Amino acid sequence: MDNKDFDKIIIGIDPGTNVMGYGLLGVKGGKPMLIAMGVLQLNKIEDHYMRLRRIYDRVLSLVEEFLPDEMAIEAPFFGKNVQSMLKLGRAQGVAMAAALGRQVPIAEYEPRKIKMAITGNGAASKEQVAMMLQRQLNIDPTDMPRLLDATDALAAALCHHFESKKPFPSGGTKSWKDFIKKHPDRIAK
Amino acid sequence: MDNKDFDKIIIGIDPGTNVMGYGLLGVKGGKPMLIAMGVLQLNKIEDHYMRLRRIYDRVLSLVEEFLPDEMAIEAPFFGKNVQSMLKLGRAQGVAMAAALGRQVPIAEYEPRKIKMAITGNGAASKEQVAMMLQRQLNIDPTDMPRLLDATDALAAALCHHFESKKPFPSGGTKSWKDFIKKHPDRIAK
Repeated sequence: MDNKDFDKIIIGIDPGTNVMGYGLLGVKGGKPMLIAMGVLQLNKIEDHYMRLRRIYDRVLSLVEEFLPDEMAIEAPFFGKNVQSMLKLGRAQGVAMAAALGRQVPIAEYEPRKIKMAITGNGAASKEQVAMMLQRQLNIDPTDMPRLLDATDALAAALCHHFESKKPFPSGGTKSWKDFIKKHPDRIAK
Repeated sequence: MDNKDFDKIIIGIDPGTNVMGYGLLGVKGGKPMLIAMGVLQLNKIEDHYMRLRRIYDRVLSLVEEFLPDEMAIEAPFFGKNVQSMLKLGRAQGVAMAAALGRQVPIAEYEPRKIKMAITGNGAASKEQVAMMLQRQLNIDPTDMPRLLDATDALAAALCHHFESKKPFPSGGTKSWKDFIKKHPDRIAK
């Protein structure tokens, strides 16, 4: 299938300073399908800025190749220490810059939220997430990646797809009753 | 003076999620001169991604307008908490992406190091840094900015200029004797 055949394309990114995972999800008639996934290995690159540049270049080339409508990022809110969070923030920042420079809106999800959306268990292992993705997207077992950073990224994209389908995305209202109460001006009289 | 008249142009960036400062320093015959400085106010923008996008866009437009040879970033190594470091890392990341995408090498300096380089005192106030910059670069008092994020950024650029002029940039060797000891292969025999 061609990019144009999808109603929507979501790029999922799992940014890290050692390995970056990415996954592209196409949606056609409400049905999500795998387009591509992979990883960018950075651990052999010693220079910190070169790693950031590789992340930026790869995300930009993916955005330019697949023209995604939205980006979903796996983003932990907590980390071991301030040093690792600064590094993670930079990796996220350069990945986001590639999307922002091409007017691709970004959504971010905590790892726990993604696991919950895909497996129903917020504490699921990476392997469980990969297995559920394989089933839900009908991925041929031979197409499954060796590094689970790729499936983690694809899971972020699928989580975003599920969230977008909800009538009231997270943080919003939860029922019609609640909605009417919050938006009295939007009731036709 | 035109961009082409300088031997080297350094862009200094003080990235923050509320205010970003920038300063452009031109070097001609070893003498540093102010080209431009300013701030990008972000505190009125509610959306986090819009702030990141503004940082990216502004740094990119500065890089494209002034064609700097190098970028110097003021980068604290420690922060209050993991949350603020993640945010700072993202702001640094998008600013760095704008440079990395245009092949501009990046150097980063701790605030203490910059203050030391400009005023001789690592614990100097922002006002003292601004005053010393005004003197060293012969800046007309009416051209001094109201927000000291601009002078902080310019100070990062000037610190980088001083560092580049040293025969042995920081982290390296400190004397010819030391240099010879460390690099016996580089002595002509």
